[in-house]
Order: sequence, then C-alpha cells, then structure tokens
Amino acid sequence: MIPVSDHPPQTVDSKGTASIERVLIVGGTHGNELTGVYLINQFDHSPGCLARSSFKTVTQIGNPRAIAQGTRYVDQDLNRCFNFLAPPLSSRQHYEKERAKDLFDQYGAHGTTPVDFVIDLHSTTSNAGLMLILDHLDSFTLQLAAYLQGKEPEIKLYSSLGSGREHDSMRTLGRYRLGIEVGPIAHGTLQAELFRKTESLIHHVLDYVEHYNGGRRSAPLGESSSTSALTVYQYVGAIDYPKNEQGAITAMVHPQRQFQDYQVVNPGDPMFLTFAGETIGYQGKTPVYPIFINEAAYYEKGVAMSLTQRTNISPGN
Amino acid sequence: MIPVSDHPPQTVDSKGTASIERVLIVGGTHGNELTGVYLINQFDHSPGCLARSSFKTVTQIGNPRAIAQGTRYVDQDLNRCFNFLAPPLSSRQHYEKERAKDLFDQYGAHGTTPVDFVIDLHSTTSNAGLMLILDHLDSFTLQLAAYLQGKEPEIKLYSSLGSGREHDSMRTLGRYRLGIEVGPIAHGTLQAELFRKTESLIHHVLDYVEHYNGGRRSAPLGESSSTSALTVYQYVGAIDYPKNEQGAITAMVHPQRQFQDYQVVNPGDPMFLTFAGETIGYQGKTPVYPIFINEAAYYEKGVAMSLTQRTNISPGN
Repeated sequence: MIPVSDHPPQTVDSKGTASIERVLIVGGTHGNELTGVYLINQFDHSPGCLARSSFKTVTQIGNPRAIAQGTRYVDQDLNRCFNFLAPPLSSRQHYEKERAKDLFDQYGAHGTTPVDFVIDLHSTTSNAGLMLILDHLDSFTLQLAAYLQGKEPEIKLYSSLGSGREHDSMRTLGRYRLGIEVGPIAHGTLQAELFRKTESLIHHVLDYVEHYNGGRRSAPLGESSSTSALTVYQYVGAIDYPKNEQGAITAMVHPQRQFQDYQVVNPGDPMFLTFAGETIGYQGKTPVYPIFINEAAYYEKGVAMSLTQRTNISPGN
Repeated sequence: MIPVSDHPPQTVDSKGTASIERVLIVGGTHGNELTGVYLINQFDHSPGCLARSSFKTVTQIGNPRAIAQGTRYVDQDLNRCFNFLAPPLSSRQHYEKERAKDLFDQYGAHGTTPVDFVIDLHSTTSNAGLMLILDHLDSFTLQLAAYLQGKEPEIKLYSSLGSGREHDSMRTLGRYRLGIEVGPIAHGTLQAELFRKTESLIHHVLDYVEHYNGGRRSAPLGESSSTSALTVYQYVGAIDYPKNEQGAITAMVHPQRQFQDYQVVNPGDPMFLTFAGETIGYQGKTPVYPIFINEAAYYEKGVAMSLTQRTNISPGN
C-alpha cells in the first residue's frame, strides 16, 4: 500500500474521532456525463432526501459551461485542474483552471465552506459496471467500500493511487473522497438503470457517513462484509493505441477485450486489431486486469485502457 | 409505398438500362462517428480493394472540421444541410452549409464529378445492429437490400421516407443512396467488430453494383433471398422526452426500452422512467417499432426514439 502524500486523512479510525461535518456531491465534472448532472438536478428538486442528522450534504454542478455545450470540457479536462502546486498551463484565459480555483476557494480545506468528504459522479463508455474510485486506501475508505459492496455485490473497487488523479482531480477538495464511475454509458446519454443504481449508492454512502459520525450510537450497519478481504484493482499504468509515425491510430481495441473490464489479460493475449485486420498481442510480461477499456475521452489522452493488478486488502475494523 | 418526389431514380430496372458509373462512399458526415472516418482512411491506404471493373468508387471525408474537434458538427448537423431549396438558416458564416454546397458542386447531378450512388457511413448509440437506411423503395434499392440481407441475415432495413432525410441528407447527392448505420457505438469510439462488419458490407454493396452494371454478363449473385418479402421498418414519426415547462428533460428512456430497437411497443407499454422513478407508458393507439432509441445526438433534436411500422415489401425482380 503506497503511503498517501497529500491531504492525508486526519483519522483512520472508524469510531469517529473526527466526524464528517460536510459532504459534497459533484455531478457534471465532465459536461457530457449526464448521469451526475441529472442526479444533482434531481437532488436539488428534493433536497430532503439527502438529509441526515449528523452532517450537511451540499451538491455542486462541476462544469456548467461544458454541460451547456455538451462536451467533456471547454479548455481542458476539469478533473486534471486541481493540482495548484503545478505550474499554470498557460497565461491565457482558461475556463477550467479558473473554475477549479473557484471551487477550491469555496470547498477546499481553507475555503469559505470547507468539505470533509467529496463524492464525484462519473460515467464511462467502458464496461465499468458500478466502480468505486478510491484515492486513499485508509480505514474509513476501505470500510465504506466494504459496506457498499455488502449492499451492492456487483461493485468493483479501483485504487487510483499512482494514476495522478489523487493529486489533480475534483475529489482532492476533500480529505475523504469517493469517485463513482458507472458504465457502459455513451457520453451525452442517460441510462435509467445505472442512474437508479448510482442514486441508490449515494444514499448508502450517506447512511454510512451517518453511522461513522454516530459511532456506537447509530444503528448497526451489518458486519457481514466488513472483515472480509476486499478485491481491489490497483492502477499500475496505461496503454496507448498503436500509432503510426504521424501519431494516427492504426488499430482498435480487440473484440476479445471490448467490454471485458476487470478480466485478466496474459502475455500474448489479443489487445488490438489493426484496421487491416491483424491482431496485436499484449506485450507485457505479467498478467494485468485492464479497466477503462475503450473510454471515448481517453483517445486524446493516449489511453486505450488502464492496467491494474488485482489485490486483496483487509478493510480492518 | 410513398412516391419519391426528388431525384427520382432514372431506372427501376435491375437489368442495367442505366449503369452506375461512379459510387461515392462518405465517412465522417458526423465528426464523432469514427467508424466511417477510419474506414475511409483505411480505404485510402489500400484503394485497390474498392476497385471493380464496371465503375469507379471515390471516397470522401464528410466533415473534416468536426472530426478535428471531435464533435458531430461545428455550426449545424451537416446531414441536414443538403436541401438547397430551403431558405438559408442565417446570413452569417456557416461551416456546414458551405461544406454541403461544396460537396454538391462536386458530386451533385450537375457537379464537376457527379456520382450515381452514395453510400454514407454512420454509427449510433442506439442498438441499430447493422441497419440499412433506404431513402427510396425502388427496385434497385430493394434488390440491393435483399442481396445484402442474404449475405448478412442480421441486417435490418429502415425506410426513412417522411423523416426529412430523403431531402436534406448527404445521401441526396446521389440518385441511388444507401445509409449504413451501425450500433450501439458510443460516439468518439471505434468498435472493431462493427468496423469489420461495415467494411464487409461495403464490399458486398460494390459487388452488387458490379452485378447490376453487368446484367446477365456478370457472375450470378445467388437468388435465395431476392424474391422473398423484405421486412422494412417504415418511419412514421418521432417521440420526444417528457419535459417540464422550462423545456428540461424530466424522464429517461425506460429500462424496458433501452437497446430494444425494432421490438414492438403496444399502447400502455413502458416508454420512460422519470427521475423520480415513475413509469410513463406509450400513449399511442397502435403498436409501433421504435428505433434510434436513446441516440445521443437526438437529445438536442427532441427525439428520444424514432417510431416505425413494420411492413413487408416484395423486392421484385
């Protein structure tokens, strides 16, 4: 387990020595991922459903200008703009950099209304199913994950440590963080079933926080899965599409990989199919478990899929 | 069968009284539908594969500026810009209107290099499978469809008559026309299997044209399916998402409709699910067969799905 370097959790004790006072739910960090956008709208129409006794939940639309134009972003991916230690990308007007700074000034640790826990809602064209993105593998996060998996066994756990997102994403606004990634959903569309499942998951998260804050005083959550080992898909890298000397893609994700997120790929297994019909095998020396396979937004990032290793981690207690 | 009013085919005789001299294959009419874009690129790398003895095939990228920015269009859907009888949308610079005029001046009936037959390549987030879009139900087109279905039984036939596309689409450049629509594919992505099937389909189309031009002199194509009735999904209308007074969507495609293109919907069957979880049934009085269900690009057009009636049509001989 890699030690966490920034925004370390103030407590790794699930008994509630430092309670969570404010939870932020963000939708539309990417403007064409409609599940989060419409969930936030729906929550805002009936805010009572988010109410819990021990903490306040606030909602936020991430990138309104990108939503208005139906694109992921305007100038740059907002979910890469929260590393304020990095030098600015350019001196010109930059919508997402300014947006990130505004959100940081509001919700960050020293902001006007700081938040303790950020839930950021995403969708993907890959076959993510219901994926939890975990930036820190601390006790709070792992026990939350165990609780959610007890409620929704199909949930998959992805540890983003090392991917960069633990430093530059929307989620960095909170010391506790959860990304919810659902798919496959084509960008610019809604899918009712995954919408409802995401909504349900958020309610489970809020219930867990209520329990966490209340410690022994709150109703028991059920212990069935909280001591079992968790299967975590740990980020280890990414693989680009085969390209020619001009930088143009020369192959597609192989049909045997399409929608096969979380499935093992052994050395030599088919990875890509060239436009001329030739299969390109996996060149690595050890098995990997690809995720984010054929995510539309990653073509321009040079990522055909992310590679993970599957590990088992005890959530502790 | 509705009579065709513009660009009537010069012949409805499959014996080849007016031969096809030039075929145009277009990809990237919509800039984020990558199957066509990369197929055209692939054809241009090995143009010999398109060569047939009795006609010339040319390829064309439809909307290069939209492709460069990864969007469907820049100013307006190019596939609605070919009705030159309609008044211009505005007097300002308009990329797609100018692009359509340029293509018309090149490939139209009185252009510099007129084409007889246009094949336009599309993809959709709906579960189209392999769909042929037919603007005219003339003998040439129906026999082509019968031939292709003989090669690929999963092909579905959609008659767009009455949808408007027979007047304003890229395909109107030719007196014979075929839209190829494959899905579900998220915009901005490639899917190897549907890419290969589309490529294969194009070769079958070119083989058919070769046969059509050659008449009895060419090799027999096989008669197995050419006299059987064809199942055609005839456009009869479209249905919008439920919306509130501000014009905002209030419901999603119902889970029982998602990906169920070509399946019958009877009065009262679930159509939408509101964000609050209520089911909205189909209000029509007669059964319909929806297609283009949950197509991303149609949210802004006010189309949750197109409605069709299923009919049987003899291809003649």
